[in-house]
Amino acid sequence: MLWMPSASASRKSQEKPREIMDAAEDYAKERYGVYSMIQSQEKPDRVLVRVSDLTLHKADEVVWVRARVHTSRAKGKQCFLVLRQQQLNVQALVAVGDHASKQMVKFAANINKESIVDVEGVVRKVNQKIGSCTQQDVELHVQKIYVVSLAEPRLPLQLDDAVRPEVEGEEEGRATVNQDTRLDNRVIDLRTSTSQAVFRLQSGICHLFRETLINKGFVEIQTPKIISAASEGGANVFTVSYFKNNAYLAQSPQLYKQMCICADFEKVFCIGPVFRAEDSNTHRHLTEFVGLDIEMAFNYHYHEVVEEIADTLVQIFKGLQERFQTEIQTVNKQFPCEPFKFLEPTLRLEYCEALAMLREAEIDMGDEEDLSTPNVKLLGCLVKEKYGTDFYILDKYPLAVRPFYIMPDPRNPKQSNSYDMLMRGEEILSGAQRIHDVQLLTERALQHGIDLEKIKAYIDSFHFGAPPHASGGIGLERITMLFLGLHNVRQTSMFPRDPKRLTP
Amino acid sequence: MLWMPSASASRKSQEKPREIMDAAEDYAKERYGVYSMIQSQEKPDRVLVRVSDLTLHKADEVVWVRARVHTSRAKGKQCFLVLRQQQLNVQALVAVGDHASKQMVKFAANINKESIVDVEGVVRKVNQKIGSCTQQDVELHVQKIYVVSLAEPRLPLQLDDAVRPEVEGEEEGRATVNQDTRLDNRVIDLRTSTSQAVFRLQSGICHLFRETLINKGFVEIQTPKIISAASEGGANVFTVSYFKNNAYLAQSPQLYKQMCICADFEKVFCIGPVFRAEDSNTHRHLTEFVGLDIEMAFNYHYHEVVEEIADTLVQIFKGLQERFQTEIQTVNKQFPCEPFKFLEPTLRLEYCEALAMLREAEIDMGDEEDLSTPNVKLLGCLVKEKYGTDFYILDKYPLAVRPFYIMPDPRNPKQSNSYDMLMRGEEILSGAQRIHDVQLLTERALQHGIDLEKIKAYIDSFHFGAPPHASGGIGLERITMLFLGLHNVRQTSMFPRDPKRLTP
Repeated sequence: MLWMPSASASRKSQEKPREIMDAAEDYAKERYGVYSMIQSQEKPDRVLVRVSDLTLHKADEVVWVRARVHTSRAKGKQCFLVLRQQQLNVQALVAVGDHASKQMVKFAANINKESIVDVEGVVRKVNQKIGSCTQQDVELHVQKIYVVSLAEPRLPLQLDDAVRPEVEGEEEGRATVNQDTRLDNRVIDLRTSTSQAVFRLQSGICHLFRETLINKGFVEIQTPKIISAASEGGANVFTVSYFKNNAYLAQSPQLYKQMCICADFEKVFCIGPVFRAEDSNTHRHLTEFVGLDIEMAFNYHYHEVVEEIADTLVQIFKGLQERFQTEIQTVNKQFPCEPFKFLEPTLRLEYCEALAMLREAEIDMGDEEDLSTPNVKLLGCLVKEKYGTDFYILDKYPLAVRPFYIMPDPRNPKQSNSYDMLMRGEEILSGAQRIHDVQLLTERALQHGIDLEKIKAYIDSFHFGAPPHASGGIGLERITMLFLGLHNVRQTSMFPRDPKRLTP
Repeated sequence: MLWMPSASASRKSQEKPREIMDAAEDYAKERYGVYSMIQSQEKPDRVLVRVSDLTLHKADEVVWVRARVHTSRAKGKQCFLVLRQQQLNVQALVAVGDHASKQMVKFAANINKESIVDVEGVVRKVNQKIGSCTQQDVELHVQKIYVVSLAEPRLPLQLDDAVRPEVEGEEEGRATVNQDTRLDNRVIDLRTSTSQAVFRLQSGICHLFRETLINKGFVEIQTPKIISAASEGGANVFTVSYFKNNAYLAQSPQLYKQMCICADFEKVFCIGPVFRAEDSNTHRHLTEFVGLDIEMAFNYHYHEVVEEIADTLVQIFKGLQERFQTEIQTVNKQFPCEPFKFLEPTLRLEYCEALAMLREAEIDMGDEEDLSTPNVKLLGCLVKEKYGTDFYILDKYPLAVRPFYIMPDPRNPKQSNSYDMLMRGEEILSGAQRIHDVQLLTERALQHGIDLEKIKAYIDSFHFGAPPHASGGIGLERITMLFLGLHNVRQTSMFPRDPKRLTP
């Protein structure tokens, strides 16, 4: 029987429980122990019940559950365990009696936190709600308990500390966990209810993005990340040794998205890594992030594209608020934040209107000056005050602050057909009508002092008939951070990369 | 009026049509010409009808259509155009009469192939089906025609040549297009009906993969591509200059998927680029490809995972056959191929059974020998013959031919709990139960002569309780190629990367 404690089950890291198991005269000795390593020896006919299903509906049933030991507390002849499964947990009681011996209670009390166990128990209604668990109406009365995988005794961080709101930590002098400790021990930090919620919601953002775009008739494309030429002069590009030559990591899928438009795919999107060799150590910069990219041909006006993109974002916000309310509330417990507000249709401000608002707030800015980070933030506050939205479009950026391939505004040569979209006063998307005409593109590149030879492949794409088109690129980590009102993209990147961090 | 021919509309590449336009005494001169560049000057109140909607239902209606000029043929006072939109096309007739002048017919006849035009016309039923177009029952009687974007006169390849079956090319001595010409001019090659179909179907594979897994409760994760240490000794890894140090491009998301399992995400998947610095120049190797990756915790037996993965692939095959029949048939026209066959549940063969089948076919192989490419191909034929399926699982690979982190089979120490999945006699997926126990993992790494220091981050992930888990990784280009019965992954990668190709 592989499922029973056995000599072969004793592995080095598991010696302590085994010692206890070996104690003599134990009427419950078949009812607990350490499994031998699960190597797919058998396919037992056993149903494991989810912690989410442990409710009054299951009262008085005998169930098997696999979960982690979140905490354990021995108290005389009893041991209380909190068993955790992802964001949920339930109380379990091992008490000396018909099913459990003194030795079994001791065994249970000695299982290291974070170990994975299989527990058989009866679901019992409790008289008083258990405030400290998500399953408040029932507890498990344990009849059997086996260790599936034993954790080491000393954890590099405590999960309870890792979900404590900073304010509480400061005011009550209780421990919190700093960012580097979290990231150095990401496998444990990702187990917290906050991390589970953040990354489940992030998975939802990708899903909603694609779901919305596929319903709108977009085609998903895959673009290469290793490229032969560094675009726009080669600043901030990572170099790769490619057999006997050098290559580069793509800073965006732009060229490939545009080639797809010139190849008649009409509406395309892609989700993939984007690389920036920028030595920026801010709360919102990563050297590798995930881009949600859109490119779309339009008929007569780039606002056709702006409207599609803004609607896609609105569908994401709505979907998150509908489907991920539990996750939002879980994150809010640790990081309190106002619910995200948006309008339908999305507010679109022109750059000159934004300048007027800032000037009214006594910010001195030139007509063709780019917005600084603090000014964008301030503008976000002004917009929230005036229009009641955390999300808006800023249209018609000055031509002077945009790249050469952006279409000038035909009404005003100092403006461009380009836009940003902003959430809670930070940019999450940048986009524009692109120049699809070879002659104008060449003129503009020369005005920018760009070597035409270096952008030949780009320009060549437009020689054989190109539809007018416009774009948008969203940073996944930023949209997750800003939707949840978090303060650092490292909280919304599972394994962040910055100039100082490459591990784990 | 920006929509009418105007002096400002004359751009260098468009001189020829303008000359014609300027001809005097033309009663239709307002009805044709070259638009000025669409710069979002206006939002005209005009509905553009899709070519797919040009059917008998629209007979006698006046419609506007934007499409490419696929071919044009002038014949006396008439000009026949074939207008193409993605995979579809329709015949359009410009004939001297009330709406069109002699000059207008000449203008239409002179528009370069692949130019994009806006056409206003009446949909007319035809007496005899038009065999050369997808819209066979109607044609467009053109009343107005404007060039939106003019293609250069000389195309580097002809679309009709690019979709010609090779057999036809050889037997009838007609032109076909070789692979390098296609790839060098990918923007044009991607416009062919075959390419449009291949990449729309590929988008469908990604969609079906995720749809199925999200329904099964999987979470999508994003894993970093720049990593600090080259796994397994650093063979076949691309090196990246990372600020003042070196970093590497991930050969697979394995470590990160497993960390997510150890972090309680239970079932995860990701879609992303995978990099292999392998100097292989075969029909099925790329240096950068797209991996569809799965990792899943299981309860007692890794077959729980094998079944989920096999079912996911079956759902993909079914979904493709249901939703992408047009695309499959379009590709088959150029590359004839038997429909893809599969069983439910999926056939699972053990390695020893496969060896027996090969030996019966007089192939001499040792029990622990790996399968060569020709032997896998032959095995595919034998399996197809015996079981009638193009898709099967090959389980229980010899431990000797698998990496150190693969779980040995507890019943037979020479076997492992690992498997491949195969389509039409080629591997598309490799997977296994992973060792989740630190002690066994360390032992196995040492047996393989691996420096423990180099895999420390990997092993450290398992110290704090790890559920048993198993995996699968699929190559997107391979599954697309094999489902469609194509012969080279470069046909199913939009912008392929191999040791000799880095552009476009």
